[in-house]
Amino acid sequence: MGTLLDGIDSPQDLKNLTGDELDRLAQEIRTLLIDYCRRYGGHLGSNLAVVEATIALHRVFDLPHDHLVFDVSHQAYTHKILTGRKQAFTNPERFGGVSGFTSPEESEYDDFVLGHTGTSISLACGLAKTRDLAGGTGNVIAFIGDGALSSGPAFEGLNWAAEQGGNLIIVVNDNEMSIAENHGGLYRSLAALRATGGQSERNPFRDLNLDYRYVEEGNSIGPLVQAFSEIKDIDHPVVVHIHTRKGLGLGQGRSEEPGAGADEPTLPALPAEGQVEANHWQNGIKANSKAANSRKVYGRMAMQALQPRFQNEPGLVVISPATPLSNGIDPEFRSEAGRHYLDVGIAESHAVAFAAGLAKAGGTPVVATSSTFFQRAYDQIEQEMAINGSAITLLNFSTGISGTDATHSGASDIAMMNSIPGLTCLAPGSGDDFLRMLAWATGPARRPVVIRVPGERILASERAAGLPDTLEGRLSMEPGMAPDSNHSGTGTDSQDPWNSYGIVRKGNTVAILGLGDMLPQACRVADSLRERAGINATVMDPHQYSHPDLTTLQALDRNHRLVVTMEDGQLLGGWGQGIAASCESNTIQVLTFGADKEINDRVPLTILNQRYGLNTEVMTDSIISALQGRD
Amino acid sequence: MGTLLDGIDSPQDLKNLTGDELDRLAQEIRTLLIDYCRRYGGHLGSNLAVVEATIALHRVFDLPHDHLVFDVSHQAYTHKILTGRKQAFTNPERFGGVSGFTSPEESEYDDFVLGHTGTSISLACGLAKTRDLAGGTGNVIAFIGDGALSSGPAFEGLNWAAEQGGNLIIVVNDNEMSIAENHGGLYRSLAALRATGGQSERNPFRDLNLDYRYVEEGNSIGPLVQAFSEIKDIDHPVVVHIHTRKGLGLGQGRSEEPGAGADEPTLPALPAEGQVEANHWQNGIKANSKAANSRKVYGRMAMQALQPRFQNEPGLVVISPATPLSNGIDPEFRSEAGRHYLDVGIAESHAVAFAAGLAKAGGTPVVATSSTFFQRAYDQIEQEMAINGSAITLLNFSTGISGTDATHSGASDIAMMNSIPGLTCLAPGSGDDFLRMLAWATGPARRPVVIRVPGERILASERAAGLPDTLEGRLSMEPGMAPDSNHSGTGTDSQDPWNSYGIVRKGNTVAILGLGDMLPQACRVADSLRERAGINATVMDPHQYSHPDLTTLQALDRNHRLVVTMEDGQLLGGWGQGIAASCESNTIQVLTFGADKEINDRVPLTILNQRYGLNTEVMTDSIISALQGRD
Repeated sequence: MGTLLDGIDSPQDLKNLTGDELDRLAQEIRTLLIDYCRRYGGHLGSNLAVVEATIALHRVFDLPHDHLVFDVSHQAYTHKILTGRKQAFTNPERFGGVSGFTSPEESEYDDFVLGHTGTSISLACGLAKTRDLAGGTGNVIAFIGDGALSSGPAFEGLNWAAEQGGNLIIVVNDNEMSIAENHGGLYRSLAALRATGGQSERNPFRDLNLDYRYVEEGNSIGPLVQAFSEIKDIDHPVVVHIHTRKGLGLGQGRSEEPGAGADEPTLPALPAEGQVEANHWQNGIKANSKAANSRKVYGRMAMQALQPRFQNEPGLVVISPATPLSNGIDPEFRSEAGRHYLDVGIAESHAVAFAAGLAKAGGTPVVATSSTFFQRAYDQIEQEMAINGSAITLLNFSTGISGTDATHSGASDIAMMNSIPGLTCLAPGSGDDFLRMLAWATGPARRPVVIRVPGERILASERAAGLPDTLEGRLSMEPGMAPDSNHSGTGTDSQDPWNSYGIVRKGNTVAILGLGDMLPQACRVADSLRERAGINATVMDPHQYSHPDLTTLQALDRNHRLVVTMEDGQLLGGWGQGIAASCESNTIQVLTFGADKEINDRVPLTILNQRYGLNTEVMTDSIISALQGRD
Repeated sequence: MGTLLDGIDSPQDLKNLTGDELDRLAQEIRTLLIDYCRRYGGHLGSNLAVVEATIALHRVFDLPHDHLVFDVSHQAYTHKILTGRKQAFTNPERFGGVSGFTSPEESEYDDFVLGHTGTSISLACGLAKTRDLAGGTGNVIAFIGDGALSSGPAFEGLNWAAEQGGNLIIVVNDNEMSIAENHGGLYRSLAALRATGGQSERNPFRDLNLDYRYVEEGNSIGPLVQAFSEIKDIDHPVVVHIHTRKGLGLGQGRSEEPGAGADEPTLPALPAEGQVEANHWQNGIKANSKAANSRKVYGRMAMQALQPRFQNEPGLVVISPATPLSNGIDPEFRSEAGRHYLDVGIAESHAVAFAAGLAKAGGTPVVATSSTFFQRAYDQIEQEMAINGSAITLLNFSTGISGTDATHSGASDIAMMNSIPGLTCLAPGSGDDFLRMLAWATGPARRPVVIRVPGERILASERAAGLPDTLEGRLSMEPGMAPDSNHSGTGTDSQDPWNSYGIVRKGNTVAILGLGDMLPQACRVADSLRERAGINATVMDPHQYSHPDLTTLQALDRNHRLVVTMEDGQLLGGWGQGIAASCESNTIQVLTFGADKEINDRVPLTILNQRYGLNTEVMTDSIISALQGRD
């Protein structure tokens, strides 16, 4: 069947379409996006909001001579479809052939690999400035919205734009909502601007001395084309505020229900947990049959453990800089938690500094987000948290090597956190220890603590051992049933029960230290050593990666010839190398397993494990070989 | 002689003073501050601006029940004087007895140790939120200004404040200038508010849905007391915008000149490089006779090296997120550089993302600031710079251990930067290599590079060798005169001349690797080994700390029994441990010298060197002992 999209291989092909054809093309793309995300998954809601705006931008501007920088770039699907990459959305066999973000490796129409929030304006300022310094031409456009505007980097960029001058177009994609909710006073000004057709006196953009236009019909190509045409080749920075609808085209109810619009496709098969979040990230059909991932399981367990305490601990609060649901902070919890839950929006610097204030006044803040998002608060973690000794607990999700895209890869989380003095860095080897660590950090510790939330390896091993996915399920088990009850903190330091390495299995010759998510792997390698070489290895749970436990390591000397460290992050600057260096003057040898220091983009975990020698067989081989070399 | 200040031992003593007495007290404190900074040094200009505001705050509010958070806290001298710490300002023998920033260890009137910009509002939000959750009382005040308002963290805090609600007072100290200059559209709105007595429609605070008051007479106690009294115990967040004068009380000219006010003390003896900067950080009298420090010498040299290229390289730009002068980017250079120099204000996230845009369009950005300020751009260094392979050069000043305060200590700069994959991390062992690295990074490299600017150890050794402090002076030397010409990059990788370790002295038995500023120390220890043990040690200049040079290390095996690494930063997560771990399976032993992972606040460098065993004698002892242990 012939579609308009069949004839679109580059933005040039848009130039001769009529207005009606452009509208039909938008409908085709919208239907395609819904089908694609239904099958494969993706940022559905944000992409549905910007179909028309993206078409209009490509109709008016001339990429790649002109430049378009999508903030976060999670909403660039239509852009990809229009710039020669539609096969990755139309052909199920090629799903996954392009990344979920812009990528210069994929296309000359993409300038940057982006996956974090708020930098598009600064990036566009840079593109425009070099253009002006070099005497070049062309429009530079930043496309930002969807919760990004309240982030510090976005403000710094906006504030600079006016000063820089010259051609610069900032499209503010105002879809009325952030990932979960918009937060902060800024969004009230946006609401006032929407309500007045852009006429409100309270205009945060004009206050920053930026020119300003408003387009109410942000999902109509005609008005968008007109607005963009009017400002094409403008000689100064301008904000074009467009009002879009997130998730447009998605039925708001089941098809059987009266709420669904007649002309809107409905998606009864789509998993949904609240309208907004279903629109944020849509899991594909295959995910339907899958059990929840480790982030959701352990995140939810943590929230369930905190919730009963709220009544008696007024200062105990959970802070989420957006994306709560991905971390198991589900709407039920948020509703129950009431004022004990604070979504501060995409503002990680604020989240940590805010938490330092909460803690100073006697409160007990828990800040939950992904490891790469904590990068955005490195300075506040070091200054307001660590130097100030603030009693904050960071719940660090999505740590360690994974098959994710480069911008969300947590492979250097250990190296980042353990570079900060004064921070207690914990890595639980089990779900139970995770909860014990959380209880300690939010209880007697009163110090800066970061806890790595258990990942897929621990989850798989606990499921295999018959442990339920919920706190309730675990609490209802018979005492002693939990197969990992011997993993508990064995430290002798009453000030910090996690200070000393714990013994999981007592053996000899080889001591295997499996940090956090690598503990199950350490046990497997120990099994393999026994089977293959008759070696009864010691297995240890280090609990923490702040500093080497020299006491325990030195005590090992007598019966062990080899210490093996295993971590699911980069070795250089990481945890195991500190242990290797500490043992340098000893007679004991140290073998470190971990990742190379490198950038990986969507490389499957199985391949990474193979590359880094993190499989049971390879690890066992290396250990046996090291022991033989030593003989 | 009796002064009003004699009777002030706590803020309580202000409560009964008359208005006249308060004014006289302000004069006394102003005179004291000028004398103190003249002798001892300090943030003179900022503190002079807020004498009256601080007195008024303490007169109206009741600390420590009420809480006052100074942003950056460099302007808290009057606060310290009023809260029991005046001796540290009046008694020369006790100068240095308090830090230049707030400190809970010093006083119950201080809540936080702060030295970085923009977090006061978030911190105050946190204090206020816990108060409200716990049902407490009292006012919480953030005191911010002086260039801090344009930083991303400050905006995130402002944006959140309105949403939080409840008592929160944000005093915006508008002294019309930042450290060097204010930058960004926001400051134009502030100017409009000043011009209209706070009535301008363009009000960025009201846009964030914050209540707002304006006080024109920000250096008059009466109006300030009145304004603060009116909003004391307010039930919602309010911004009090006060107009102050930075450096008030400092004569603007020499006493002989007509420009000096009759009633203003003038300071002909004070060193000054431009009015604003002299007001930013005032070096004490003792500094007058001192030569420039390493930041200024090598920073200026770098600028001198770049300047001749501007004419032919339109895209070559130097970006300074404020504090240019401290890094040798002096007014003469800025004036000559014209559009090749960009001060983006205190906005490090923007600075690096902006640079990524500049680089993508073919430009060559150099971003210059202190190592702890780069912490504020960790995410942009990792994402926009490293993942994107952006051809940015970071000039990293104030790295390594030092006697500075905790918030500005660069002791973990190596651990931070080397945790980031894709970043080439260079540490020159000489001023010449520094310039060669800069030329490479801003020339053929076209990749993400961070260069540690040489510090005091290299400067001292180069001065001792008779090298001039200026590029001009060095260029005018006879070829071959430079005693360190043999330090040049000896790498065989044409893609990166700094990839391989360079040989400074060829020897045997022991190979000493002195990273960057530790290279002179490596040479001294080699001398000492020869004298004391007749060992002719090899000395190597590693050039880089991105990754161990395994080829060179393995080639050492044959003639060397011990590798010694020396770095002036923390060992854990640092550089030497990576080398130790890499050599683990070899027969060669590795001894690592560096700092403990700990927070230090104004501990003199000599004490730190002693504590970490970084003195020639101790290092030599350790090496000899390690060799004997191995025999």
